[in-house]
Amino acid sequence: MSSSAARITAVDTYDIRFPTSRELDGSDAMNPDPDYSAAYVVLRTSGDDTAGADTAGADTAGDDAGGGPEGHGFTFTIGRGNDVQVAAIEALRPHILGRSVDELCADPGSLARDLTGDSQLRWLGPEKGVMHMAIGAVVNAVWDLAAKRARKPLWQLLADATPEWLVSQVDFRYIADVLTPEDALRLLRQGREGSAERAGLLRESGFPGYTTSPGWLGYSDEKLTRLARQAVADGFTQIKLKVGADLADDVRRCRVARAVVGPGIRIAVDANQRWNVDEAIEWTKALAEFDPYWIEEPTSPDDVLGHAAIRKSVAPVKVATGEHVQNRIIFKQLLQAGAIDVLQIDAARVGGVNENLAILLLAAKFGVPVCPHAGGVGLCELVQHLSMFDYVALSGTTENRVIEYVDHLHDHFLDPVVIRDGRYMAPMSPGFSATMRPQSIAEFTFPDGTFWAADLDRQQKQQQQKQQKEQAA
Amino acid sequence: MSSSAARITAVDTYDIRFPTSRELDGSDAMNPDPDYSAAYVVLRTSGDDTAGADTAGADTAGDDAGGGPEGHGFTFTIGRGNDVQVAAIEALRPHILGRSVDELCADPGSLARDLTGDSQLRWLGPEKGVMHMAIGAVVNAVWDLAAKRARKPLWQLLADATPEWLVSQVDFRYIADVLTPEDALRLLRQGREGSAERAGLLRESGFPGYTTSPGWLGYSDEKLTRLARQAVADGFTQIKLKVGADLADDVRRCRVARAVVGPGIRIAVDANQRWNVDEAIEWTKALAEFDPYWIEEPTSPDDVLGHAAIRKSVAPVKVATGEHVQNRIIFKQLLQAGAIDVLQIDAARVGGVNENLAILLLAAKFGVPVCPHAGGVGLCELVQHLSMFDYVALSGTTENRVIEYVDHLHDHFLDPVVIRDGRYMAPMSPGFSATMRPQSIAEFTFPDGTFWAADLDRQQKQQQQKQQKEQAA
Repeated sequence: MSSSAARITAVDTYDIRFPTSRELDGSDAMNPDPDYSAAYVVLRTSGDDTAGADTAGADTAGDDAGGGPEGHGFTFTIGRGNDVQVAAIEALRPHILGRSVDELCADPGSLARDLTGDSQLRWLGPEKGVMHMAIGAVVNAVWDLAAKRARKPLWQLLADATPEWLVSQVDFRYIADVLTPEDALRLLRQGREGSAERAGLLRESGFPGYTTSPGWLGYSDEKLTRLARQAVADGFTQIKLKVGADLADDVRRCRVARAVVGPGIRIAVDANQRWNVDEAIEWTKALAEFDPYWIEEPTSPDDVLGHAAIRKSVAPVKVATGEHVQNRIIFKQLLQAGAIDVLQIDAARVGGVNENLAILLLAAKFGVPVCPHAGGVGLCELVQHLSMFDYVALSGTTENRVIEYVDHLHDHFLDPVVIRDGRYMAPMSPGFSATMRPQSIAEFTFPDGTFWAADLDRQQKQQQQKQQKEQAA
Repeated sequence: MSSSAARITAVDTYDIRFPTSRELDGSDAMNPDPDYSAAYVVLRTSGDDTAGADTAGADTAGDDAGGGPEGHGFTFTIGRGNDVQVAAIEALRPHILGRSVDELCADPGSLARDLTGDSQLRWLGPEKGVMHMAIGAVVNAVWDLAAKRARKPLWQLLADATPEWLVSQVDFRYIADVLTPEDALRLLRQGREGSAERAGLLRESGFPGYTTSPGWLGYSDEKLTRLARQAVADGFTQIKLKVGADLADDVRRCRVARAVVGPGIRIAVDANQRWNVDEAIEWTKALAEFDPYWIEEPTSPDDVLGHAAIRKSVAPVKVATGEHVQNRIIFKQLLQAGAIDVLQIDAARVGGVNENLAILLLAAKFGVPVCPHAGGVGLCELVQHLSMFDYVALSGTTENRVIEYVDHLHDHFLDPVVIRDGRYMAPMSPGFSATMRPQSIAEFTFPDGTFWAADLDRQQKQQQQKQQKEQAA
């Protein structure tokens, strides 16, 4: 990477919301009406940066004439509160504005530590919730920028990095009792063995996915049947159904799904935190006859000991969680307590790539497979890079590892995921696949984007017509 | 309570910040420069409410001519990010505006469940961090309003309530495996025995406190000596020292403090999450010769299993935590795992009075004493009510129970805490003691209040003078 005097010149934020609740896409027992949204951040850089400048024009949004490459990142939310998330990203601006792009990209971990360590902002977490997700968005934007400048997809940038440098990117605070820097170094050195061959296999045939598209609670049995059949035809070997609202419904839907896909396809079920510990055990046992592969989010993501109790009782059904696990410290305990069979990282919940490196290392230390949460908006685009790095240069295997796939909203990204025969194809463009199309940003920025402005206008007109009718009657 | 058609007419928010970092008050190993702040909310009600109207004029801020009593609440923060916290409170406004005051006050738990259950906002937690603290501020404001209308201090409103109603105010989700509604009812019925007598004792002689005023890290040994001596003279039987930045300093400061207060006064030490598990054990053992009563926040508040390991190793030094524990689910596990000797509730961290009721009940079930975190701005005012209720109508004892006291910023409240002989005197005014003086709000609202506007002006002038000098030189 060539040396440069480039600086971060702007930290621009966008409140982007898609009206997904109108179609019941994404409905589950806890989240019946999500409007998939992104609290989106763009790090702009000064134009005296030469590294990666030739690719920047093509794959960044709003890149003005004189600017260098941009870093894009976001927090995924499901609608209301996306503005709060944007405010949290903006609170981080002073830490980033004016920083040297070279220094940031050479050591994103240093920024990550500065952000989580802000002596006043950490009171709002620490390392959890809105403030921590904001940190994740900014840190991920730096990784996007670093990968663009290195002209590599992020998974490859990580896989090509030395074990020593990767270890320097991990914050071992609060996990060193279980994972030391020496442990991490050993795991990463082991992971390097055969990595070139695995990178070749990955480029050729991708990484296995599974699909949640058939299984939303709001769908009819007919739609479930059609989409489950389609999933198998599309090459997926695992599907997922949402459960937890009504046991009789769940039994019926599991029966329908099992009949459609046959015994050879894995069916995971997902309760989205709906249950207490006892309910989780009873309900999962009631669904056991349909051979569920895992029960996901059976209870609160905070309840380490609860998950351990559930796992003990529902085996051989596996226990999976992670999309709402707030940080590496909870993941550490889930592993220590033997509470999970499957660890589900999320690219935009924790403090960015750096914290996810820590979590992948913890999983590797315990030999627990990582099957990322995805879907929403842009989560598939991001998280595929982390699983691919894990395969190429850490765990070294795809066995029992699948990345969630949902066929929503990919068109809004410049480098959308590519699924072939139920597998995620390796991204080849530089960056973290996080860059949204400028026209999508313009259309779905809330409340002033063209879609929402027209929507508001429509609603106001309907309201007026209704009032006029009422007056006339 | 008389029936009324009153509604919530406004949910007004204020970003209030005090420049405490300039005096190093409140400095500790993780929070070296706090500007004690409040994301403050006022629920205004329509004037057709008669209940409590005669007291409302006297003890509420900004009460306009036609309005009924107001509910005041806040999240405590330490400066930056207070605006994010205000944004989170504002995101809750649609849930509250227009609600019936009668219904809200008769069942604050219903509002608490609506807020934590918001199908989109819960993604930002769930039940943790910025969004959950915002819920706590709003729920506490409703309790303030309810107590004002009932013309009782909050502790008394709770102590007078029936066990059945109190149980209805608790959300047992995710804790029912350890505490059932039946358990809670039994504990509250037991707690009622002798409660009238204890209420009398409380009104007479208050509830024991301890003071952190001598122990801030930024203070010199001379100031520590003077303030520790003063604390004993003031009747406190426990003081607390901040530790964790430098072991040699801590040894010296503990030695100084022990020499000043003698063997009969308890000295707690507080690491404010500075350590990993192993460090916590080593450091605490190194301080053991000074007979610390408890080690507080030895590591991350998220690390249940870590606290359990520390407690096992440092006994007989007790382990205390809670001010940053995000919700009842983590407290449940700290108790299940035998990880703490002392449970430190905070009035403004979790989801308000309702969740703190759940936590007090969990502590009672496990027989673990509750010693609240306080200090900051307004935390003493709030949390005293919860300990006093616990004493009068739940645990029934003050043995090994003390409320933290710090002598900061009480003057900004209309009903400030009263400390006599090291004890919190029972508040007698209606409400939750949460109401800040209107002139304090006007002065310290950030950045437009009179203090901050003048401060900014001063800074700009200094900057100009500096530039003029530089140009002249």
